[in-house]
Amino acid sequence: MMRAVKCLGTGGVEVMKISQIPIPTPGPNEVLIKVHATALNRADLLQRRGLYPPPPGYTDILGLECSGEISGGHEKWPLGTRVMGFLRGGGYAEYVTVHKDQVLPIPSKLSYTQAAGLCEVFLTAYKCLFYLGKGKEQEKVLVHAGASGVGLALIQLAKWKNLQVFTTCGSSDKEKACKDLGADFVWNYKSGSFLPAIKNFGGADLIMDSVGASYVSDNISCLNKNSRWIIYGFLSGSKVKDIDFAKIFAKLSTLHFTSFRARSDEFRNDVISKFIADGVLEEFENGRMKSIIYKELGIEDVQSGHLIMEKNENIGKIVLRII
Amino acid sequence: MMRAVKCLGTGGVEVMKISQIPIPTPGPNEVLIKVHATALNRADLLQRRGLYPPPPGYTDILGLECSGEISGGHEKWPLGTRVMGFLRGGGYAEYVTVHKDQVLPIPSKLSYTQAAGLCEVFLTAYKCLFYLGKGKEQEKVLVHAGASGVGLALIQLAKWKNLQVFTTCGSSDKEKACKDLGADFVWNYKSGSFLPAIKNFGGADLIMDSVGASYVSDNISCLNKNSRWIIYGFLSGSKVKDIDFAKIFAKLSTLHFTSFRARSDEFRNDVISKFIADGVLEEFENGRMKSIIYKELGIEDVQSGHLIMEKNENIGKIVLRII
Repeated sequence: MMRAVKCLGTGGVEVMKISQIPIPTPGPNEVLIKVHATALNRADLLQRRGLYPPPPGYTDILGLECSGEISGGHEKWPLGTRVMGFLRGGGYAEYVTVHKDQVLPIPSKLSYTQAAGLCEVFLTAYKCLFYLGKGKEQEKVLVHAGASGVGLALIQLAKWKNLQVFTTCGSSDKEKACKDLGADFVWNYKSGSFLPAIKNFGGADLIMDSVGASYVSDNISCLNKNSRWIIYGFLSGSKVKDIDFAKIFAKLSTLHFTSFRARSDEFRNDVISKFIADGVLEEFENGRMKSIIYKELGIEDVQSGHLIMEKNENIGKIVLRII
Repeated sequence: MMRAVKCLGTGGVEVMKISQIPIPTPGPNEVLIKVHATALNRADLLQRRGLYPPPPGYTDILGLECSGEISGGHEKWPLGTRVMGFLRGGGYAEYVTVHKDQVLPIPSKLSYTQAAGLCEVFLTAYKCLFYLGKGKEQEKVLVHAGASGVGLALIQLAKWKNLQVFTTCGSSDKEKACKDLGADFVWNYKSGSFLPAIKNFGGADLIMDSVGASYVSDNISCLNKNSRWIIYGFLSGSKVKDIDFAKIFAKLSTLHFTSFRARSDEFRNDVISKFIADGVLEEFENGRMKSIIYKELGIEDVQSGHLIMEKNENIGKIVLRII
């Protein structure tokens, strides 16, 4: 048996309780990871509330990523290897199983805490910006929620490939975090619409959008020709009133609606192998790329972790240490 | 000087008059085509009304395609070669210039009339279905306006690559035309929403959409996971009142808003070269693919041609003979 955070029903943070459950058994293409740390994602909050059920066949334990050491399973990964697991669930536990190709080696300079918060945000950012978005040097990218976990990864990946980055965020601390990572222009949305500023910046060849409804109209207005608009979240809701498709048509834009969890192994493996082949992990070795950790908590503090994220206080990742 | 149809102002068919204008001079990468025939496209109707101006730097003479013979310009095409020109304008005239790589040889079995109506619809269909949509064998494609020029080309291209085709159209003659070309299921929209029938068909992996607003809600409801929705026209308008992005997100769909005219030469050339390399033109030689001509008119009957298309009477292309 092992310790894991179970949701006893759906609702507020109080439904999450530490419980004893069986250690999972890896399938033929899987490894077993002894988890050292996991990290929070907004999807966890939705799942806790019953709004984002796990895909059929996967555990209902929360946790989309972890760091730890290989403790069994497939020969691809020797016992004891320090790894990051890119999960469809199960990270909030002492052990988790995961497809052998959805495991990445931890860059040697990173602690288990830093590694726990790397996978989900950097793979999501890489997928949105390059794998789907085909972002190219000198293109202008609008990153909404720049100080979120994915936002901070997007800024770093975009600057790494010499794109020009315009971000939005909602506090001066967050502005500073975005600028420190190299964002070319940061707009605090509490000062009003980002639209005049992004137009002045030269519009957007790419939009990385986790905000949804409230920005749709301004997003459409700033799209450049042949632009790609990647929609991966709905912080402000998803219901849009009065949208004129002709305005998007005039820009010849492509809209990608994308998540990771419900994707096939084939898709997930392909993004991971391109991410590795492109050399992103080396950039953590040389210090150019950073896994930004806001707070490290013990697994018993999982409820406070969720509350921090719910209040949008964090800049970067909230990590839960399992051991 | 040469004869050409000029729009004297914008408005109804009466603004189009046959006039004398100078023969255009080909630029360094262009050829001059002596036009035998041109064909009507819905874009011509919009342009005549002032709703679809030509891209900057291009002629304001209508006509997005033609057949004819090379009469000067670039060495890539010997004088007298029977060709089709894929134009950004200028087809309603005795001569037209076009980029040397936006010229295709006429399959030997086709007359100038058949060839005049081939380019725009088959290149558009190829671009939507394969170049952008990445349609694959056994996938299910929903083709709206199946009996339109592009619709009939989409049906043929989709069946050629063994996709399953569901089309919508609005008369029994059109139903027959779609079935004759191999559509697996044809829905007459005058009998009500296509939604129950397409769900029964297994949903849509691809939607080829020239209809716009009125079908948006039903389109979203029938999207399969990882589907691609290609929006290339707005026969019913473009303004959508309510749309829930979360429903598209749940399907992980990609939306491509696409036209051809405003695209770069690079994009147009790339689609054409893939279209040729894929062997589509050979299928016209062996009779598997057909250029469907609804009516052949003299250039002096251009006004009646536009009226037929405006009333949605045609099944396939309306061709204007220049000589």
